[in-house]
Amino acid sequence: MAIRHHQPPFAASTNFIKTPKLSPSSFRPNLSVSSKPVFTSVESFAPATVANLGPGFDFLGCAIDGIGDHVTLTIDPNVQPGRISIAEITGIQNPHKKLSKNPLWNCAGIASISVMRKLKIRSVGISLSIKTGLPIRSGLGSSAASAAAAAVAVNAIFGGKLSESDLVLAALEAEAKLSGYHADNVAPAIMGGFVLIRSYDPLDLVSLKFPAEKNLFFVLVNPEFELQTKKMRAVVPTEVTFTDHVWNCRQTGALVAGVLQGDLVGFGKALSADRIVEPRRGVLIPGMEAVKRAALEAGAYGCTISGSGPTVVAVTDGEERGREIGERMVEAFREEGKLKAVTMVKKLDTIGARVIKY
Amino acid sequence: MAIRHHQPPFAASTNFIKTPKLSPSSFRPNLSVSSKPVFTSVESFAPATVANLGPGFDFLGCAIDGIGDHVTLTIDPNVQPGRISIAEITGIQNPHKKLSKNPLWNCAGIASISVMRKLKIRSVGISLSIKTGLPIRSGLGSSAASAAAAAVAVNAIFGGKLSESDLVLAALEAEAKLSGYHADNVAPAIMGGFVLIRSYDPLDLVSLKFPAEKNLFFVLVNPEFELQTKKMRAVVPTEVTFTDHVWNCRQTGALVAGVLQGDLVGFGKALSADRIVEPRRGVLIPGMEAVKRAALEAGAYGCTISGSGPTVVAVTDGEERGREIGERMVEAFREEGKLKAVTMVKKLDTIGARVIKY
Repeated sequence: MAIRHHQPPFAASTNFIKTPKLSPSSFRPNLSVSSKPVFTSVESFAPATVANLGPGFDFLGCAIDGIGDHVTLTIDPNVQPGRISIAEITGIQNPHKKLSKNPLWNCAGIASISVMRKLKIRSVGISLSIKTGLPIRSGLGSSAASAAAAAVAVNAIFGGKLSESDLVLAALEAEAKLSGYHADNVAPAIMGGFVLIRSYDPLDLVSLKFPAEKNLFFVLVNPEFELQTKKMRAVVPTEVTFTDHVWNCRQTGALVAGVLQGDLVGFGKALSADRIVEPRRGVLIPGMEAVKRAALEAGAYGCTISGSGPTVVAVTDGEERGREIGERMVEAFREEGKLKAVTMVKKLDTIGARVIKY
Repeated sequence: MAIRHHQPPFAASTNFIKTPKLSPSSFRPNLSVSSKPVFTSVESFAPATVANLGPGFDFLGCAIDGIGDHVTLTIDPNVQPGRISIAEITGIQNPHKKLSKNPLWNCAGIASISVMRKLKIRSVGISLSIKTGLPIRSGLGSSAASAAAAAVAVNAIFGGKLSESDLVLAALEAEAKLSGYHADNVAPAIMGGFVLIRSYDPLDLVSLKFPAEKNLFFVLVNPEFELQTKKMRAVVPTEVTFTDHVWNCRQTGALVAGVLQGDLVGFGKALSADRIVEPRRGVLIPGMEAVKRAALEAGAYGCTISGSGPTVVAVTDGEERGREIGERMVEAFREEGKLKAVTMVKKLDTIGARVIKY
C-alpha cells in the first residue's frame, strides 16, 4: 500500500490511503486472528457531511470534499491496555462549548472504544489527538467527522479487519450518545459520496454513485448563530398528513434519481421541496426563507438546511457560479436575518474517512 | 418510419412504431400547423402497468411487456367533425361490469377527446375500436392501457405533434374521471419502463432506466376476486406517524436506487417494505399475507400488491424461477385465501404505448 503525504484539510483534494475493502464474509471481525497493532501511529481524516438532505430526514446524507477532522492515534505504553486516552484537541472549537477530553463523552473517544471492543483489543492502550476542522453544531457533521476519523484510525492501526458497515456502527454509537441515533452523517463520513440508510435494524446502507463526469458544487453558508438542538428536534412532528407524506416520498425518489442519473435540475428541485421538516425548522433560522430565495434566484439548482442547521446548503454545477450564489446568500443572511455569515464552495467527497499517514 | 407487422399482445415482444419524440419546445401543440389527419387509420397498443409500487403509492409505476390493450382508430365521415364514436369493444371483459361505449364514460374515449381538444381538431370525426387484453379492476392498469393506446393513436393519426407529457395529461384526464387522479399507471403505460411522478402541478415525470443488461421478471398472480375500489381507497389513512413516514421515504429512495442500479436485492427489499398502504389493503385480499410469504420463501426478491389489487406482483431474475414462484403463490391463494388464481411471468416493457399499424 502506497503511503502518500498528508495534505491540509482545506486543500481541494486530499490524498489518502484507503483502508482495504473486506469481503462480506469478514463483516464481523475475524477473532481467530489476534488483533495486535500493525502500526505504532496512524493519522486519519474524515470529511464534513450534509445530512437530512431535503426530504431525506435522518436517512440521506453526503460527504463534502476538503473540510473535516483529523485524528492521530498512537500506541501508548502510558495508557492502560484496552483503554484509550484523549491527549489533545486542537483546531476549530466552539467558543461556548468545548469538546470533552473524557473519552466517554467525546465522539472520537466513543467510536474508538467501540472499534476496540469489536476487535477485542486488550493488549495495548492508545492515545488520541483530535484536530477539528469543523465548528460544532454548525450542521456540517462535526461529531460524525471526529467519530469516523477515529473509527477508521483504530481499525487501521490494528490491521483494518472491520468492514465499512462495522465502522459506521461504531461511529453511530458515538453519534447516538451525543447527538441522536441517525447515521446520515456518519455513513457518508466513512463511505464518501451519497449514502441512503434503508434500514437501521439491521443496518442497510445504499451507496448512491453520482456520475464522476458531472460537475457538482455545494455552496455552504454558515451564519454566526447558535441553534438549540432541543428546539430543532422539538419541531419535528409526530404525525404528518398523508398528502405531505406522499409528497415527500416522491421528492425522495426524485432526489435519489437525480443523484444517480447526474440530473442536477431534478436533484435540486427535490432537494428544495421538503414539506415536512424544513418549513418547521427554517423559521428557527433567522433569514432562512430569504437566503433560500436568494440562492435559487442566483441560479442554484436547489437549497435547503444542512443537517439541522444553521448552515444552509445550495447546489450548482460551477465553482464561480457557486461563489456568486454564496455571496447572495450571505447578503440575505445579513439583510433579512441580521446575521453575519461565511460561505465556501466545495465538491463532493467520494472517498470518505481515510488513513493519511502511517 | 418503418411499418412493422402487428404482433398479438401476448407475444413475448411486440414490434412497434414509436411516435417520434418531440423536442421540449414542442411540448405544447404547434397550432400554427393545421392538424389535419396524416393517416386514415391507425392501430396502437399500450402495455399493462403495475402502479403503487411498494412504498410508491400514487407516484411510482412500471410497464409490463406483452400484455395490454389495442385501439384501432379510423377517420370516419359518419362521425361529426371534432367528435369521436366508439364502434366496438372486444377482448377480455369483466363479466360483472361491461365497459361503456359512451365516449364520455370510456377511458379511451375521454383520452381521445382530450388529445383532439389539445390538437384543436374540428375537421374530421373518428371512430374507435378497443380490444382489451386486461381484465378491469385487476390491478394491472386496464383503464390506463386503453387511455394510453387511444391517446397515442389520436396523436399519431394527426401527425404526432404532442409530447409524451401531453399524452400523459390526456390519459390522466380519463384516469381521473373513472378511477382517480393518479398517473402511476398512465405515465408508464405511455412512456414504458419505470416512471416516478415527482409532481402533478406542474406534471413532472422522472423516467427511471433499469439497466438493459440485467434480468427482471414480474410474477403476476391474479385471483378470482372482485375488490371494491371504494373500500380500497377508504383504508388509505389521512395521517401517518412520522416514524412510518420516514420508513416509507427510505424505502422509496432504496427502491429508486435498486431500479437505477439494477440491484434486484435492494429493489425487492424496498418493494416488500411498505408500512403504510400495503398492510391496510393486504387484509382486504384473502390470503395476501400467505401469498407474499410464499413468494419470498420461493426466492422472489420482493412482493407486493399490484396497483390497488387484487393482483399480487413478485419480482425475480429468471423466467423459470418466476414460474415456480407463481405456482407457490397460486397455491397459497387457494389454501389460505380459498381463491382460484392464475399466474403469468412477464418482462418489463421499456417502450410504452406505440403505433403498431398505419
